[in-house]
Amino acid sequence: MNKLPDIPLSRLIGYVEEDCPFGDVTSEAVILPQVCTAMISARESLVLAGLTEVTRLSEWYGLSVSTACSDGICHHAGDVIVTLTGQAHTILLLERTLLNILGRMSGIATRARRMQDLVSAINPECRIAATRKTAPGLRLMDKKAAMIGGADPHRFSLSDAVLIKDNHRALVSVDEAVRRAKAFSAYHRVEAEADTIDEALLIAREGADIILLDNMTPDQVSQVISLLVKNDLRERVIIEVSGGITEETLALYASLPIDRISMGMLTHTVKNADFSLDIMKEG
Amino acid sequence: MNKLPDIPLSRLIGYVEEDCPFGDVTSEAVILPQVCTAMISARESLVLAGLTEVTRLSEWYGLSVSTACSDGICHHAGDVIVTLTGQAHTILLLERTLLNILGRMSGIATRARRMQDLVSAINPECRIAATRKTAPGLRLMDKKAAMIGGADPHRFSLSDAVLIKDNHRALVSVDEAVRRAKAFSAYHRVEAEADTIDEALLIAREGADIILLDNMTPDQVSQVISLLVKNDLRERVIIEVSGGITEETLALYASLPIDRISMGMLTHTVKNADFSLDIMKEG
Amino acid sequence: MNKLPDIPLSRLIGYVEEDCPFGDVTSEAVILPQVCTAMISARESLVLAGLTEVTRLSEWYGLSVSTACSDGICHHAGDVIVTLTGQAHTILLLERTLLNILGRMSGIATRARRMQDLVSAINPECRIAATRKTAPGLRLMDKKAAMIGGADPHRFSLSDAVLIKDNHRALVSVDEAVRRAKAFSAYHRVEAEADTIDEALLIAREGADIILLDNMTPDQVSQVISLLVKNDLRERVIIEVSGGITEETLALYASLPIDRISMGMLTHTVKNADFSLDIMKEG
Amino acid sequence: MNKLPDIPLSRLIGYVEEDCPFGDVTSEAVILPQVCTAMISARESLVLAGLTEVTRLSEWYGLSVSTACSDGICHHAGDVIVTLTGQAHTILLLERTLLNILGRMSGIATRARRMQDLVSAINPECRIAATRKTAPGLRLMDKKAAMIGGADPHRFSLSDAVLIKDNHRALVSVDEAVRRAKAFSAYHRVEAEADTIDEALLIAREGADIILLDNMTPDQVSQVISLLVKNDLRERVIIEVSGGITEETLALYASLPIDRISMGMLTHTVKNADFSLDIMKEG
Amino acid sequence: MNKLPDIPLSRLIGYVEEDCPFGDVTSEAVILPQVCTAMISARESLVLAGLTEVTRLSEWYGLSVSTACSDGICHHAGDVIVTLTGQAHTILLLERTLLNILGRMSGIATRARRMQDLVSAINPECRIAATRKTAPGLRLMDKKAAMIGGADPHRFSLSDAVLIKDNHRALVSVDEAVRRAKAFSAYHRVEAEADTIDEALLIAREGADIILLDNMTPDQVSQVISLLVKNDLRERVIIEVSGGITEETLALYASLPIDRISMGMLTHTVKNADFSLDIMKEG
Amino acid sequence: MNKLPDIPLSRLIGYVEEDCPFGDVTSEAVILPQVCTAMISARESLVLAGLTEVTRLSEWYGLSVSTACSDGICHHAGDVIVTLTGQAHTILLLERTLLNILGRMSGIATRARRMQDLVSAINPECRIAATRKTAPGLRLMDKKAAMIGGADPHRFSLSDAVLIKDNHRALVSVDEAVRRAKAFSAYHRVEAEADTIDEALLIAREGADIILLDNMTPDQVSQVISLLVKNDLRERVIIEVSGGITEETLALYASLPIDRISMGMLTHTVKNADFSLDIMKEG
Repeated sequence: MNKLPDIPLSRLIGYVEEDCPFGDVTSEAVILPQVCTAMISARESLVLAGLTEVTRLSEWYGLSVSTACSDGICHHAGDVIVTLTGQAHTILLLERTLLNILGRMSGIATRARRMQDLVSAINPECRIAATRKTAPGLRLMDKKAAMIGGADPHRFSLSDAVLIKDNHRALVSVDEAVRRAKAFSAYHRVEAEADTIDEALLIAREGADIILLDNMTPDQVSQVISLLVKNDLRERVIIEVSGGITEETLALYASLPIDRISMGMLTHTVKNADFSLDIMKEG
Repeated sequence: MNKLPDIPLSRLIGYVEEDCPFGDVTSEAVILPQVCTAMISARESLVLAGLTEVTRLSEWYGLSVSTACSDGICHHAGDVIVTLTGQAHTILLLERTLLNILGRMSGIATRARRMQDLVSAINPECRIAATRKTAPGLRLMDKKAAMIGGADPHRFSLSDAVLIKDNHRALVSVDEAVRRAKAFSAYHRVEAEADTIDEALLIAREGADIILLDNMTPDQVSQVISLLVKNDLRERVIIEVSGGITEETLALYASLPIDRISMGMLTHTVKNADFSLDIMKEG
Repeated sequence: MNKLPDIPLSRLIGYVEEDCPFGDVTSEAVILPQVCTAMISARESLVLAGLTEVTRLSEWYGLSVSTACSDGICHHAGDVIVTLTGQAHTILLLERTLLNILGRMSGIATRARRMQDLVSAINPECRIAATRKTAPGLRLMDKKAAMIGGADPHRFSLSDAVLIKDNHRALVSVDEAVRRAKAFSAYHRVEAEADTIDEALLIAREGADIILLDNMTPDQVSQVISLLVKNDLRERVIIEVSGGITEETLALYASLPIDRISMGMLTHTVKNADFSLDIMKEG
Repeated sequence: MNKLPDIPLSRLIGYVEEDCPFGDVTSEAVILPQVCTAMISARESLVLAGLTEVTRLSEWYGLSVSTACSDGICHHAGDVIVTLTGQAHTILLLERTLLNILGRMSGIATRARRMQDLVSAINPECRIAATRKTAPGLRLMDKKAAMIGGADPHRFSLSDAVLIKDNHRALVSVDEAVRRAKAFSAYHRVEAEADTIDEALLIAREGADIILLDNMTPDQVSQVISLLVKNDLRERVIIEVSGGITEETLALYASLPIDRISMGMLTHTVKNADFSLDIMKEG
Repeated sequence: MNKLPDIPLSRLIGYVEEDCPFGDVTSEAVILPQVCTAMISARESLVLAGLTEVTRLSEWYGLSVSTACSDGICHHAGDVIVTLTGQAHTILLLERTLLNILGRMSGIATRARRMQDLVSAINPECRIAATRKTAPGLRLMDKKAAMIGGADPHRFSLSDAVLIKDNHRALVSVDEAVRRAKAFSAYHRVEAEADTIDEALLIAREGADIILLDNMTPDQVSQVISLLVKNDLRERVIIEVSGGITEETLALYASLPIDRISMGMLTHTVKNADFSLDIMKEG
Repeated sequence: MNKLPDIPLSRLIGYVEEDCPFGDVTSEAVILPQVCTAMISARESLVLAGLTEVTRLSEWYGLSVSTACSDGICHHAGDVIVTLTGQAHTILLLERTLLNILGRMSGIATRARRMQDLVSAINPECRIAATRKTAPGLRLMDKKAAMIGGADPHRFSLSDAVLIKDNHRALVSVDEAVRRAKAFSAYHRVEAEADTIDEALLIAREGADIILLDNMTPDQVSQVISLLVKNDLRERVIIEVSGGITEETLALYASLPIDRISMGMLTHTVKNADFSLDIMKEG
């Protein structure tokens, strides 16, 4: 149900301009000015994402847009996603950019949905979460797509939550780090990574909001949780698990009483969903 | 051997700023000012790409950079790619962006290399080629990575070659389109897609530089080539084959006497290569 | 002790370019090329802020910079803050921009320090906090200055924490809003504004991280805290008080067992600190 | 009566984007899509400024805007300034930016109007003038607001008039400087600061357009004017007085036969005017 | 007949903002708000170019635009090109930018048309071509204008075709250079400059697409062509001639059986076409 | 002697990026990494302009630059202007942009110098002046070049002086316009165009700083001046003459006792000065 911010129009326009620093020589050369209609269709089953962006971008360039679809809904091969009407030159200019946006966003959303469904079936309280392993410059796009698929967006950037990881702990002890983070600002979450079971306890005692258990086995995770329960700290913290978790190993972790499973692969291993744009032959 | 343009520094900086609209609250909060050293290492076998970008970006932010590696060379798990020395805050600020750039570019280069090696072993004259199915805003990055892997970059954008495809042919006949394209400019390649064997002949006769055989079976491609040879046109044109070709079906096409095999998946299905950045513990 | 992110260089350069769309006609017209030295001095007692920005900007334009001062330290009328050496044209070009940056940031830091000192003397656990009432485009600058003065930065933007206020509650009940916010993401704080004492209890029960008591009298705030203590919820939440609190009324609130006092006036009512830049006469 | 340029839309949009690098997590999380109406009202007496900007920005984001007010008119606590209708998410996204723009601009305009009225009552020929002591990046906004209040905008930047001050005179004699400035271009005003009474005469003789009397007592200013009258130069020059003049000392200067009183505090000491935005409860 | 890409709106707006960093002080000062009508007329015979840009820019700023003209058509002194209706302030703000765009583009188009007509009358197969000697930042504008006049646009940038010139040949032999270029990418034209008649043969044999004969006399060009014909290579290559060719010497080259004559002067020696904008006096 | 502002580095870089949206395919393809040296030489007599820009841009890209020349000095065919040393790829990347900048700026400066010299020989007090008829986006570059040639820059933009022309006078009487302009701001010149001799007197009486006599014959200009002298107003105003004045008719106007002759052709009719860049052959 959660909606998400749109990609700003200026960036969308930039994607089109990237594709034509000096115009579209093909359609300038071979197509006469004329109005036509084109359909964008799904070529496989997918969770749709990027429709808002495609609509706004097409309208900015003067096309009229008609659609009966919505982001977040599952579609199948052959489904018409959107119909565009306007100058043939404009449709041809936008074709690849529209497909690239829809393809990437739906590709991410589709996988996220599949992962979240797998987790929810086992542990309804647990959510998968995206990471900052997004394509350069596409943080908002990739996070939005993951959310449309059902994932928790996690930190958007280095500015919106404190996350103390290995590289910080090479420079400061984790308990001191948590204390400093809490002193920094009351308005930002504080999360810290635990290397050992004892460290998890220490982090919880210092009052961090979230404990990240990175690269632990399911068994180790269980021990951490038991220890936290015993110390009456389990309810005070959110437990996030991460570390090379894939579609294959996901179920093992999902059966634990944890809160979040974060997976870099949601955005760093992307297979574009397949769409096509077809101009209707006249007559 | 072909080198490729660097990503402009201003875009690289933009990737860092995307990750910290209001700074890095973690290191601001928990790390004292101090100089340290960090190593970026490969965590799997890969063809390195993005090293130039990582070097320039790190230097811009005041780090000193040391490396014995080069883009385009194969590296293995555990290899140290680059060593960074400077303020801990700066290294932590750049960490994710550097890894995201290296990961994406090396991921693309690694797959392209594997594909090109597969093709070259069968047909030394034939090259794989990238397409415009790149992530939005990352055209240069994705094309550069594919080239480092050995692929032909193909068109960079709509501005640098004419490519007449299905959607153009819905609006104009292919022979008329080729004639118009040749009249447009002598300085841009003209390529046209053939749906049928006869159409391929027609395109060659009109003087297009490249014929694109999209979604044809290997057998159909062979028939086209025979016909072109018979009409003494084979040497006049470059033959490009495309259409859902994957790692599995690649060998089938590579054994044909064709010039290029273009594959959208080189850039639209990306699995980031895996790198880590580790700050050295003092003492 | 908490340091803060620097303003990106590109924005600092933009401030200079704003001041000279077509150059500095005065120094172009009247000053011959020559090297000179200038000193920036405080003209009143102040907490210094903006020195990092002034240093980086001056160096970018080729000046050499020398200083024995630091951001966050108190200085007095007559103290030399920084000495600049280089082309007279460059110093004159930068003069007003450097003074505007130092003046605004130190003005904000100075007031914040005075306020925080006043609060700390009464209640060492309580901190003042800035708001989003910053000058348009200067969010990072104004927040950084307030932090240098000792304030909690509060939310940097709409993206980094959930804050449910009157206008949200006109559209959804506050308990439902808190529930939805907690479902949105585990990585962002959830804060909600309470209109009444009962509502504060409701918000705490739903598990919000922070309760905002806006426009309550000190007595009402006390009642809220008593109720939370009685329900064993005080430790679970942070109490923020706000609403037209000024330097005059601050002490009244500071004596309550609260955590944060947020004041829009920290950044929306700014009196620039007074600095001067003087070029040394030769000879 | 003088109208003023609008802030370009791209900058206004930038102010919104500064506030939501990754969207508005609160309204995304807690508010369902729905149309609503909101009113922006004054919470104190003020001279309105920024209404044009608020209108254009709201319309760009798709809101419909209705207002019976105008920039430059005095309004009182409780007056409705503008009514906005549209998606609740959009109104909540813009809320703080709209209030920050109105607040800053009206704050500046209100003080400028009060100052100018004070001066005009004493000396109808004399105008207050703004300076370049504006917030970084907000030169146009601050100058526009001061003009709406009735102030002369003075130089917009270093490019539009020559002003020879202390730091120039440390490097060149003032008479030589005026000569060079007049030779530079006939299309830009030439103003020079006089330290002494004799110097004022010298500047007038060299043909400067404006003499700046900085940090002189009212008595010294009178002497300068007498000397200029005696030498038949008074009509040839504009007399500007400046230097730490505040609301308290303004009347002393206003009673002199001078033309302009420039005051940095018009834009460097800003108290935002107080507005609120309230979403109408349905029902 | 070939149409050409429009200049992106954001750049057009930038041209207006360049002309008014702080607004239009003249019309702000002297013109009351009022609607008026203005006509842009040709003041000499010219080939119109830039009308699309003028229309889009005017409409963006809220003017209504009416025209019966088209880019590429010849107009004469006194012809009304476009009629604008809207706020007087807006028309006055845009006046100079609109005239500068129309003037430059039509100036380039007019000369290109005259040159191409001269060539076509002698050799209907031969086209003039523009070069990269365009004004900084105006590549697209200048190329578009030259194409409207009938010229081949030639390379748009260094990215869209390979052109091996003297400076490359100082570093690598021309035959090796052609081989490397052909190996780089199949999708970009390869052109090489020949210094001597034998070199032209060598370039053709290596399979370059285009031979550039720079600074050769008509007689030398003839010899090159004969040699290519004798070697059965003439049909394989396009012959481009360049090097200080002017309106005076153009006919000499046009009579040779060549394909392209490229002339830097088309865009580096520009005489703006003369237009005026006149506001209609109310009557 | 007057120096002028440099073009900001970011714009210069933009000119390079315009020329290589996806890199320089020629040198990437054909040139091995190697250090070399290149010389930029004049190919005709010219007044040099743009050297500062060429130096800064080359250094930014990592070249080392050596020169014994200066902007504003006359050079002749064969003179070496600047020597560049560095990576061959970089020199080839910058070649055309450097030549385009030098060519345009020196072309403008050379013509301006010739014009100013012609005027100065007749009337040492009179200066030519540039107009706003500059290439879109190149206002600063074109004005700077004209000033290096000796011209008065005139208004840089609509923001820095009031100039009341025909189109304003279609909407308001000229005397009322001058009065309003003087009330707007004391810091901006006020100039008004006179259609008739009587109007010139009216404008002077209202206290405008400059009278523009547009499209008057030399005889009419003389009559205006006599009338102003008779009314003791000549010394109060600057007389500017304009209107289709060319190199041929310039002397006629220069012999009149006027102050400025403004000529659009200084920047709207540009013939690039001719430079070449030659890479030194090794050995």
